[in-house]
Amino acid sequence: MTTTPLNFQQMILRLLDYWQAQGCLIWQPYNVQVGAGTMNPATILRVLGPEPWNVAYIEPSIRPDDGRFGENPNRMQQHYQLQVILKPDPGNPIELYLNSLAAIGISQREHDIRFVEDNWQSPALGAWGLGWEVWLDGQEITQYTYFQQAGGLDLNPVSVEITYGLDRIALALQGKNSVWEMAYGAGVSYGDALLQAEIEHCQYYFDVADVDALKNIYDTYEREALRCLDAGLVAPAHDYNLKCSQLFNVLDTRGAIGVTERAAYFGRMRRVAHRVSTAYVEQRQQLEYPLAEKGARDQGPEARQEDSAPGTWSLEPGTLSPADGDTFVLEIGSEELPHGDLTSALEQLRAAVPALLDAARLAHGPIRVQGTPRRLAVIVEGLAARSADVESAVKGPPADRAFDANGQPTQAAAGFARSRGLSVDDLTVVEEGGKRYVSAVVREAGRPSLEALAERLPDLIAGIKFEKSMRWNATNVSYSRPLRWLLALHGPALVPFTYAGVVSDRVTYGLRPFGSPAIVVPDADAYLPALAEATIVLDSDDRRAAIAAGAEALARSVHGSIPADPALLDEVTNLVERPTPLLGSFEERFLALPPMALVAVMRKHQRYFPIYQGERLLPHFVAVRNGDAEHLDIVRDGNEHVIRARFADAAFFYDKDIKRGLAEFVPALGKLTFQTALGSMLDKTRRLEQLVPVVAEMLGLNDAERATADRAAALAKADLATSMVIEMTSLQGKMGGHYALRGGESAGVATAIAEQYDAVSSTRPALALAVADRLDSLAGLFAAGLGPKGSNDPFGLRRAALQLIENLTAHQQRFDLRAGLDAAGALLPVAWGDKPRAEALAFIAGRLEGVLREAGYPASVVKAVVAENAQDPSAAGLAASALAEATRSPDWPALLNAYARCVRITRSLPETYPLRPDELAVAEERALLDALLAAEAEKDGRVATFVAALRRLEPAITRLFEAVLIMDEDPAVRENRLALLQRVAGLAAGVADLSGLEGF
Amino acid sequence: MTTTPLNFQQMILRLLDYWQAQGCLIWQPYNVQVGAGTMNPATILRVLGPEPWNVAYIEPSIRPDDGRFGENPNRMQQHYQLQVILKPDPGNPIELYLNSLAAIGISQREHDIRFVEDNWQSPALGAWGLGWEVWLDGQEITQYTYFQQAGGLDLNPVSVEITYGLDRIALALQGKNSVWEMAYGAGVSYGDALLQAEIEHCQYYFDVADVDALKNIYDTYEREALRCLDAGLVAPAHDYNLKCSQLFNVLDTRGAIGVTERAAYFGRMRRVAHRVSTAYVEQRQQLEYPLAEKGARDQGPEARQEDSAPGTWSLEPGTLSPADGDTFVLEIGSEELPHGDLTSALEQLRAAVPALLDAARLAHGPIRVQGTPRRLAVIVEGLAARSADVESAVKGPPADRAFDANGQPTQAAAGFARSRGLSVDDLTVVEEGGKRYVSAVVREAGRPSLEALAERLPDLIAGIKFEKSMRWNATNVSYSRPLRWLLALHGPALVPFTYAGVVSDRVTYGLRPFGSPAIVVPDADAYLPALAEATIVLDSDDRRAAIAAGAEALARSVHGSIPADPALLDEVTNLVERPTPLLGSFEERFLALPPMALVAVMRKHQRYFPIYQGERLLPHFVAVRNGDAEHLDIVRDGNEHVIRARFADAAFFYDKDIKRGLAEFVPALGKLTFQTALGSMLDKTRRLEQLVPVVAEMLGLNDAERATADRAAALAKADLATSMVIEMTSLQGKMGGHYALRGGESAGVATAIAEQYDAVSSTRPALALAVADRLDSLAGLFAAGLGPKGSNDPFGLRRAALQLIENLTAHQQRFDLRAGLDAAGALLPVAWGDKPRAEALAFIAGRLEGVLREAGYPASVVKAVVAENAQDPSAAGLAASALAEATRSPDWPALLNAYARCVRITRSLPETYPLRPDELAVAEERALLDALLAAEAEKDGRVATFVAALRRLEPAITRLFEAVLIMDEDPAVRENRLALLQRVAGLAAGVADLSGLEGF
Repeated sequence: MTTTPLNFQQMILRLLDYWQAQGCLIWQPYNVQVGAGTMNPATILRVLGPEPWNVAYIEPSIRPDDGRFGENPNRMQQHYQLQVILKPDPGNPIELYLNSLAAIGISQREHDIRFVEDNWQSPALGAWGLGWEVWLDGQEITQYTYFQQAGGLDLNPVSVEITYGLDRIALALQGKNSVWEMAYGAGVSYGDALLQAEIEHCQYYFDVADVDALKNIYDTYEREALRCLDAGLVAPAHDYNLKCSQLFNVLDTRGAIGVTERAAYFGRMRRVAHRVSTAYVEQRQQLEYPLAEKGARDQGPEARQEDSAPGTWSLEPGTLSPADGDTFVLEIGSEELPHGDLTSALEQLRAAVPALLDAARLAHGPIRVQGTPRRLAVIVEGLAARSADVESAVKGPPADRAFDANGQPTQAAAGFARSRGLSVDDLTVVEEGGKRYVSAVVREAGRPSLEALAERLPDLIAGIKFEKSMRWNATNVSYSRPLRWLLALHGPALVPFTYAGVVSDRVTYGLRPFGSPAIVVPDADAYLPALAEATIVLDSDDRRAAIAAGAEALARSVHGSIPADPALLDEVTNLVERPTPLLGSFEERFLALPPMALVAVMRKHQRYFPIYQGERLLPHFVAVRNGDAEHLDIVRDGNEHVIRARFADAAFFYDKDIKRGLAEFVPALGKLTFQTALGSMLDKTRRLEQLVPVVAEMLGLNDAERATADRAAALAKADLATSMVIEMTSLQGKMGGHYALRGGESAGVATAIAEQYDAVSSTRPALALAVADRLDSLAGLFAAGLGPKGSNDPFGLRRAALQLIENLTAHQQRFDLRAGLDAAGALLPVAWGDKPRAEALAFIAGRLEGVLREAGYPASVVKAVVAENAQDPSAAGLAASALAEATRSPDWPALLNAYARCVRITRSLPETYPLRPDELAVAEERALLDALLAAEAEKDGRVATFVAALRRLEPAITRLFEAVLIMDEDPAVRENRLALLQRVAGLAAGVADLSGLEGF
Repeated sequence: MTTTPLNFQQMILRLLDYWQAQGCLIWQPYNVQVGAGTMNPATILRVLGPEPWNVAYIEPSIRPDDGRFGENPNRMQQHYQLQVILKPDPGNPIELYLNSLAAIGISQREHDIRFVEDNWQSPALGAWGLGWEVWLDGQEITQYTYFQQAGGLDLNPVSVEITYGLDRIALALQGKNSVWEMAYGAGVSYGDALLQAEIEHCQYYFDVADVDALKNIYDTYEREALRCLDAGLVAPAHDYNLKCSQLFNVLDTRGAIGVTERAAYFGRMRRVAHRVSTAYVEQRQQLEYPLAEKGARDQGPEARQEDSAPGTWSLEPGTLSPADGDTFVLEIGSEELPHGDLTSALEQLRAAVPALLDAARLAHGPIRVQGTPRRLAVIVEGLAARSADVESAVKGPPADRAFDANGQPTQAAAGFARSRGLSVDDLTVVEEGGKRYVSAVVREAGRPSLEALAERLPDLIAGIKFEKSMRWNATNVSYSRPLRWLLALHGPALVPFTYAGVVSDRVTYGLRPFGSPAIVVPDADAYLPALAEATIVLDSDDRRAAIAAGAEALARSVHGSIPADPALLDEVTNLVERPTPLLGSFEERFLALPPMALVAVMRKHQRYFPIYQGERLLPHFVAVRNGDAEHLDIVRDGNEHVIRARFADAAFFYDKDIKRGLAEFVPALGKLTFQTALGSMLDKTRRLEQLVPVVAEMLGLNDAERATADRAAALAKADLATSMVIEMTSLQGKMGGHYALRGGESAGVATAIAEQYDAVSSTRPALALAVADRLDSLAGLFAAGLGPKGSNDPFGLRRAALQLIENLTAHQQRFDLRAGLDAAGALLPVAWGDKPRAEALAFIAGRLEGVLREAGYPASVVKAVVAENAQDPSAAGLAASALAEATRSPDWPALLNAYARCVRITRSLPETYPLRPDELAVAEERALLDALLAAEAEKDGRVATFVAALRRLEPAITRLFEAVLIMDEDPAVRENRLALLQRVAGLAAGVADLSGLEGF
């Protein structure tokens, strides 16, 4: 097709026409600035409650921090969305979507259209859903979501939300280098229409907006929203929440909101959103759901369970039957599964299918479980046509009641026999526990495989668990993504069952790029050939190998190679049904950017394989298309366009950043709030500058190391104010390291900065900085009363504590966290004291227990060592290791018992008695005293030392208890003996608390 | 056509398709709440500057005070506009518009589509234009404007702005009783989609919004707008101005903005709008007008004068020629002229055409000038085919230079003769002022009428002046509305000329309802028959008579009659080309409303004739369609629907108001700001309660009158807080009177309230209230430094002063404004004193001069009496009358001269000398003394008294000057005589200052 592509407005009108024809209400953009069409009440409110709602509308969407002053080819503070809501799911929403693309001239056959996992959530709206980014030749053009929750409320029915990025679609359609060059309509370009305002809005958002004034307005608008809610006004309250959201976005872009303050704003917006949503739901209920009459009324909540029970099929006479030993195949067809879900589901099925067949008593041959993003397939060779027969004995009434005095069967015997389908002649008498009963041997005959399978397959599917699962239709069954078809054949016969509203059939579907043609499969053995014919590569291993080989060959063609990257290879393997690798290139000039940024963009954002020549990155990449090689040039062009835009974005930021030295970004940290009570990131920097020397001292760094750590502390957070990190948060620290080195700092300083967020530091200065940073956060947030509550950990303190533990442990570095926290606490702008210290330590202890448990130590051992070593994670680790080893030694029970006797007899005593060695007259007493004094002299807090000592003490203890009565009548004697044992019991203090160990 | 009407969204998409096909950019609604699509930058900014711009877009428009809680059938706080901008004017915008209606199924043939003058302006945007409301069967469905100015800047080119009221169009199209019942699309009704939010927004705007908080936000947003402007950011500044506008609207709806405070807000918004517009224009210039290349570049400002000069036609050989005495016809075809413009243009042409023909020396018979809204026609019978010849003498060089000594003509004579197209033989010699010159008789031959007319007709049209005129195309010629065609025929011949870019032709156009078919007119005599054939009634008198007769007949059919209403009849006559009256009805229940409200709605809003039976209003009306009777039922239905909605609106307000007594509205006046410095309307009320008794005393009211005035003062402003008056401001005072009477107040109180805003009061209590109200406003605003500046009179003080003058004069009530202002000033919350008093008095004096001048008094007389009577308008009027009469009497010169002699001889004296009567020895002295003493005894400040006295004094004065030397050598004698004349000169003090009169 070489017709003139549609201009922007024609494309829009064509799409609106298309969705109108699909029965959608055509709505208007909202008259409040919103970040997305989702926030329009036509989505965020209408998805609530049971009423059907199908709508499509354009939404100019404002995202201030996407502003690039008009310098990026496809990234702007304003982009146009087409928002479509289908409620309930019509059953074929992806097909409707793909047809809409065809309606504007985007054929699947000419492009690579991909569904890449993307689970959308809006913390400000209390909303989330599962779905995908839809990629067109590598470019994200649509966000496609099954909306699960909004305003904190579960959605029932679920809505399908399709959000088109119209600008990017038009860009691909028109084949222009930048949106600004696109034809908008009426002879006017997109740039003519929008560029100047784009630049100005960026200037306003980044440089001009009055932060304090807008914060005040935020507060006022929030109050208005709450006043509206108090008056029962849903729509005006929602408007104000949207205005708050926009203000927040502006403040954020202006750099006025810190990571921790952000959480507080989200919480405020979410609370309003929740009240709005709840009020809306109540309102619709009071209005008696006026729209329920207009559409699919029977899709209401009552219908939810209608299809989820098995067995709604009945086996018709004349249905084809399997022969014994015929192949069985099950294909679970769905919309595109996420990478991780596909892997996990295959593993689960590999375990579950044999178990199912065993339970069904179906004999079988080899089992294969394979899959692609759209299908999970189970192929069982040589499956029996019937399940095996089985016999079992059933106990009946007592023999004396079953037979009368003449030995004739009574009514009781006859009834029992009848209830089991037997005659009284089949009954025997058995004796059990001295009593005699009637017994019958019941034979359960094998059943046809179709029946047995039909009964169990729904549970097989229901048994697959996903990390995140979703509902999509009235059955409210959960699965990773909507389950759309079930193919189940045993030999030529259909295995009839229903799951999640889908009725099993003998149909599978071909590749999306070919239009997903329906393929009728006559019998199970025809399944694999049918897929092969459809050029679908069912086996992940085959796909993986094909991608690896193809990518490597393409890399060689430009004299490069692709480093092993199993994680990326696995992911790409799971994104396609038929992989076709292609080589793309980008301009050499982008190689001036830090490779970490280029690679991050290629791997993380685009799932491209970067190509190296030795250590050097080449201006090429391998992308993998889902489909064949037809029109591969269009796909390559598209992908190259995308990476160009992305790199242009990175270059924009990088060039901006390197105009200034890293140290020059430090003052800007004053605008980044760390947390309201704890001040800005600049305040945190100032604290780190004081805390790092203290920590360095505690860690025993030498002078050179200290100097390095001190300098790193001063620069550590600076990169948070750089554009590169504001844009790609994942590069924080790393970019700082890069900029530091580029700016002439020493390698040691750069390393410490680069590694500050890593779990394990590679140098001691880096360790000092990382530890100090974590201590400041933990002390600060606990002091501010913001420790994690329940599973709510908005400030990431779990991670901070875990990294502290891991880092100190990796360095085998003893460290007193109490002293460290106190040092951090003394620098805080909020009050520090016993309560926050105790809370912080208890919190760290909890994480430490978890770490040690995960390392495989028994719970009792972990508890024992943490009780005494929580303040020193590295020591606790060693202690756990030693104690665990000790508990496995053959003499451990005896050792523990001896020690436990000392503890048990002394632990209730009201006081600690003074030991008077001279008065210990008995030899056993003196022997124990000698052993005790030796042990006390050796004591170093290590478990190994303690156990070694105990091993020497044990005979003395045992003998003492055998030789004397501790609780002598003479108080002086008794108390001196108790004093001796108290001293023995005290040996474990600071080492481990053994009282929880088994055998104590 | 009985096809299913389009639903709302189909209608919208159809219209967008239509305008896309006309070359419009299809734009999106704005993401800031706006009151109209005009405020979208795609209009209000893009109309600035020379670049072409054609755009269409939907705009959900928010007008909080139109909110009716969903209870009105077609009035809502949100309505949907389709906004179309055509820049420059394509030449046929109305036809494009009418075709767009046809595209959605609204045929002109089935409906009454009318263009009713409506001159749009937005004080907040500094924008205005001329145009119409378009009526569909009486319903306003579109605002159609030729945009003349925006942001205070002249627009060049002018833009055509077409603003569709989509909801009302859909309502008519779908034939539903209320918008809520309309089909929106996808099986969803308009009410399903919008009603609940409508109700809630109304509640927010009317009852919930936090006034103080929103006022603060207004201030902040204004500051942000100004900061944006300082940074050169046009679009963000505009956004903030829009947000201010919306906040203002909410505050206004909340009743938080007084009449005078409103002006201040408008001023603030307008200043920002002006800066935004100016910055935008500069920006486009700096960008070198990127859109200028895309469209009609040659329509730029340089082209503006290209067509306005006459004579771009050349008379081709072979063109038809008129015969002598053939009829001449000129038809100036335009888009619909406003009522007043049509009347005025006809009057002007009636004067100008004979003058034109005389100047052109074209003999002619009877002249008729007639017209309809779309055409002005001049028909001249018996017009000469050539203008008359004329001879004139031209003076040449002096005879002695023209002829040499031999009497032979010199080069000078030859040159002169040649320059006049004569030979030297034609020269004669004439004598003038004792000198002899050569002279020639020049004959100017008559010219063909076509030439003479072609030369003068452009000036004829240009000479028509309108109260408001507009530009529309690149010629920038001004006219009442766009001039679209010119028919000019003399006999069979075309009179060729061009005006405003229109080339004269022999084509006229038929009725709009018939599609304005082109009608070729072969010769001038065929013009009237052609119009008759097209059923156009050219003569206003004919139309007026037809309407009056038809309306009366319809009224009789329901046993009613129509009171004489010449103003309305004239207006309706000028709204149609072919009148067809129709009878409409409304529900009896609406008759429960005050007739003044019903009649105001019918007359003012709808131009319907109300029907009475005696004093009683009947539930019927007569509307007049432009067109024939075909489908008259549809037109009637439409009109009845409109009046029902309007009355429902009135009923909504009335019912709301009468739930409370009038006095109960008084506290709400506290929320209506009168003016910031002067407090609320409640504060004004409190002042009036104190001021009215003082004024009543000054006016000499009796006790009963005073009691009435006092009570009226307490209630006077209460109706400003009633819904009825908030909605229909023109009913202020009148509604208050109605509510007062309804609430049991006396008729006197009700009258005083009802008449408070009238120029003339009918009772003395009403006079007291009206005078006190004006005094409070004048004193207050001058004290606050807010007196009118230049032509800027935001608080209507000119009107206040004029009404004060008119009312006091009508009552022949003497009143000392100085004392009145002081009484008012003493009650103000701001400082009162000499300066504001002097300014206020000077301002009133200025108005008084104007009033007296308009009454026909000579300027010198007015000046003379105002100089001494400014503080008492009624007295000044009488004085002016008397003085003017006096000046016209035959002896006045003598009287004035005598008096002037006294003044002139004394006015430079340094002191006033004591008069010593006993020392006046001369008889003439004594005679004057006697006359003086008599005059002083009679003096009462009246001019008549003074003139009578002067008449008696004059002989004595004259004789004294004849008899003695005033400036006697003896100082005692001299000073005593001067003292006598000083006393005479002083007689005019407080009466008039005669020194400016002619002859003084």
